[in-house]
Amino acid sequence: MDNKNFREKAHELVDWIADYYEEIRDYPVKPDVEPGEILASLPDEPPRNGEPFDQLFSDFKNAIVPGMTHWQHPRFMGYFPANTSYPSLLAEFLTAGLGAQCMSWLTSPAATELEEQVMEWLRRMIDLPEDMEGVIQDTASTSTLVALLMAREKVSNFDINENGYDSLESPLVIYTSEQTHSSIEKDAKIAGFGRRNVRKVGVDGNYAMDANQLQSAIREDRHRGNTPCCVVATLGTTGSTAIDPLDNISRICQEEGLWLHVDAAFAGTALLLPEKRDMIQGIESVDSFVFNPHKWMFTNFDCSAFFVKDTDHLRRVFSILPEYLKTGEDDNVKNYRDWGIQLGRRFRALKLWFVIRSFGVEGLRRRIRDHLEWTGDIRKKIENDPQFELLAPAPFNLLCFRLNPEANNDFKANELEEEEKRINRLNRELLNTIQEEGYAFLTHTTLDGKYTLRMVIGQTYVSRQDALDVWEYIRDKGKKLL
Amino acid sequence: MDNKNFREKAHELVDWIADYYEEIRDYPVKPDVEPGEILASLPDEPPRNGEPFDQLFSDFKNAIVPGMTHWQHPRFMGYFPANTSYPSLLAEFLTAGLGAQCMSWLTSPAATELEEQVMEWLRRMIDLPEDMEGVIQDTASTSTLVALLMAREKVSNFDINENGYDSLESPLVIYTSEQTHSSIEKDAKIAGFGRRNVRKVGVDGNYAMDANQLQSAIREDRHRGNTPCCVVATLGTTGSTAIDPLDNISRICQEEGLWLHVDAAFAGTALLLPEKRDMIQGIESVDSFVFNPHKWMFTNFDCSAFFVKDTDHLRRVFSILPEYLKTGEDDNVKNYRDWGIQLGRRFRALKLWFVIRSFGVEGLRRRIRDHLEWTGDIRKKIENDPQFELLAPAPFNLLCFRLNPEANNDFKANELEEEEKRINRLNRELLNTIQEEGYAFLTHTTLDGKYTLRMVIGQTYVSRQDALDVWEYIRDKGKKLL
Repeated sequence: MDNKNFREKAHELVDWIADYYEEIRDYPVKPDVEPGEILASLPDEPPRNGEPFDQLFSDFKNAIVPGMTHWQHPRFMGYFPANTSYPSLLAEFLTAGLGAQCMSWLTSPAATELEEQVMEWLRRMIDLPEDMEGVIQDTASTSTLVALLMAREKVSNFDINENGYDSLESPLVIYTSEQTHSSIEKDAKIAGFGRRNVRKVGVDGNYAMDANQLQSAIREDRHRGNTPCCVVATLGTTGSTAIDPLDNISRICQEEGLWLHVDAAFAGTALLLPEKRDMIQGIESVDSFVFNPHKWMFTNFDCSAFFVKDTDHLRRVFSILPEYLKTGEDDNVKNYRDWGIQLGRRFRALKLWFVIRSFGVEGLRRRIRDHLEWTGDIRKKIENDPQFELLAPAPFNLLCFRLNPEANNDFKANELEEEEKRINRLNRELLNTIQEEGYAFLTHTTLDGKYTLRMVIGQTYVSRQDALDVWEYIRDKGKKLL
Repeated sequence: MDNKNFREKAHELVDWIADYYEEIRDYPVKPDVEPGEILASLPDEPPRNGEPFDQLFSDFKNAIVPGMTHWQHPRFMGYFPANTSYPSLLAEFLTAGLGAQCMSWLTSPAATELEEQVMEWLRRMIDLPEDMEGVIQDTASTSTLVALLMAREKVSNFDINENGYDSLESPLVIYTSEQTHSSIEKDAKIAGFGRRNVRKVGVDGNYAMDANQLQSAIREDRHRGNTPCCVVATLGTTGSTAIDPLDNISRICQEEGLWLHVDAAFAGTALLLPEKRDMIQGIESVDSFVFNPHKWMFTNFDCSAFFVKDTDHLRRVFSILPEYLKTGEDDNVKNYRDWGIQLGRRFRALKLWFVIRSFGVEGLRRRIRDHLEWTGDIRKKIENDPQFELLAPAPFNLLCFRLNPEANNDFKANELEEEEKRINRLNRELLNTIQEEGYAFLTHTTLDGKYTLRMVIGQTYVSRQDALDVWEYIRDKGKKLL
């Protein structure tokens, strides 16, 4: 493919992408395919000779697109969103075009300095303390792993980095809530803490960490000779966007001398709104903080914003300097390869820059407030529907609810259990029906043993009407099941 | 920004990107900027209201591009390349456009199944054993970390995942060569092995691992009560693309029962050529293998191809299944989130598919053979120049050499040391001059204490003339320094 051919095909692609967004509501959100169906349609052997691009593009449109779940569909309301937006897309095109490797200042001076500036913008935008500094990681899984490693080396005084597993005399313990994201446990295993040394602290009626139980768990560990190391608090859990009480937790961490990491991967975006900043009371003593603009802030995956207080410590945990990476500027610049796990780094600051400048802070706020308002509208509809039941508070734009035809009835205890099972089956059936039809995409969780439908109103181009349409669709599907 | 505006601006961008590649030889490869210069030009505060895209694009062209090191410049010959190509770019545009999150089959069925097929293509293309299966990771740093974690859990029988650091009685040891990539040590620290438990085995005159020394090191560790765990062999080291003797190493690993991971991050691409497959004698007993199509195989960063023999073990090391990630198809599909560290995953298979189909296997081979041939041409010129000296064998497309006006003289031992220092200073000066002028981009390493210039002829759109031009430029600069 030569330059002329590339130019021509790239223009075709741009029109396809623009059309895709224009027509996206006509696509089923989830494809109607069986496991193995697409694989079976692909040739076993790679082609010996090059194929014309028109053939590739046509296969993309006919074999791949119909097999995709459309995350940018306004009726995609499952998991948490992984949003893009037009300015973010344009930045991704340019990032791909430059194809720069941003591991050190020398290898991409402008990318390094733009990252520094844009992370400082973000820090101000979400009102984090002035003594925190940010760096872009790929995912919250990685950001939290980096935080756990920082905590590990803090408490062991770099003994594990240097001497490994066998140097410790007592296990290091991590504390997080029962509702924490699965990546915390995964990261704890990777970093060598061990699953057994992750304490899942109980939650209150709102699914937020019970700070008293945290305090007791720490005391018990000290009593047993274990070494409390780190607390991971969540602002906006994956199950129900519960908000752990940061003020109490941070006080405990200060008193106990523990590392405090905050996982605000999804809900961090809400901190753009001054009226949502109650949840970061106590932030002054937080050691590390992650939120993902690639979730709710309209920036292509991957873009995880990781903030830490002690950047010297961060670099000391990760820096390695072989001769072939040394540059003449190392003493005067930031080399972000030393701020995380991977050596290679994409130019991810560009899309954040484009998104923030194209929307403006007020533009971002407006869109987020819309999502919160529309969530409130649907919430009222759920609460007012005698056959549906809200299962958790909805502090942001996630609604947790279920179909419950008996919501207003009283049952005896033994009947209750059977009834709960029946309602769980009913809601599983409702979700299956929705997913099979592909009109909208929801996912589920369980809360207190209850099979719970999750509906997130946070897609970049979702409208109030989309939210209403999906709610009415769910309601109708539900009533038909009864 | 609305759809119409996006379409219009995306077309402008496409023309800019196509122009960029057309005119790229007119750019300095490395920008002439001082640390902090770009940062100082950026506003401290994010804009309150959205700005028109023309302003963003103009700032991109005027403030960012002049501050970038141009990795796609044909005269970029530093480090290892991080190549893109026209078909890869087109795939990246579409990947950004779809904005899909490929963590599980359900969230992107076509992406999952395309990844499975394209990794099987790659396996065949580089002649890995049939019982290996591949998955795309982001970087070789991550792929190798995954390998070390697999080795750790194999030897500890999942005890570290479960119980953490304090459960082991003796340190686990990793073996690799003195010339190994820095990421191995970094990964060993992350996974909790400790820097002290990474044995840097000595190398032979070609900078390849000495298998006898490996054998001795393992025996010594067993004697001291340590637990040998894993060997990392490199095919194509970063310093000089040395090739560790895989056949001997794999025999030792089999006899000793050690995990064998192969880091072929850069040189793996050469395995496309049947004539380069001597280096994988012994591959049958390798446990894990990484090579990065994002280096020399014309595929945008990030795309690291990680192959393992025991995928059940891989999944057991990483899988975690909270309720909110469960899907009805989990038993019948691949959920790649369980094949690595991060939960979130971009649709990276698409660019590999486009690259392989657009070039065809023969097209890829032709380009790689060109690079090898042109490297041979320049190599002869270095060897025939009395004032330059080749410092390592060049089995691929990396030349390690230095300016040495006294290459043919004899010195007494004490004069030699002073002379070596002088020559090192001279070559450092030569590299600085080259980097300052920006006509070409080289980097350096040290080999046996000698400051070594590295010149890689492997950029996607490099020509024989580019290679000759750069060599003549270096030669002239060097002679002027004498």
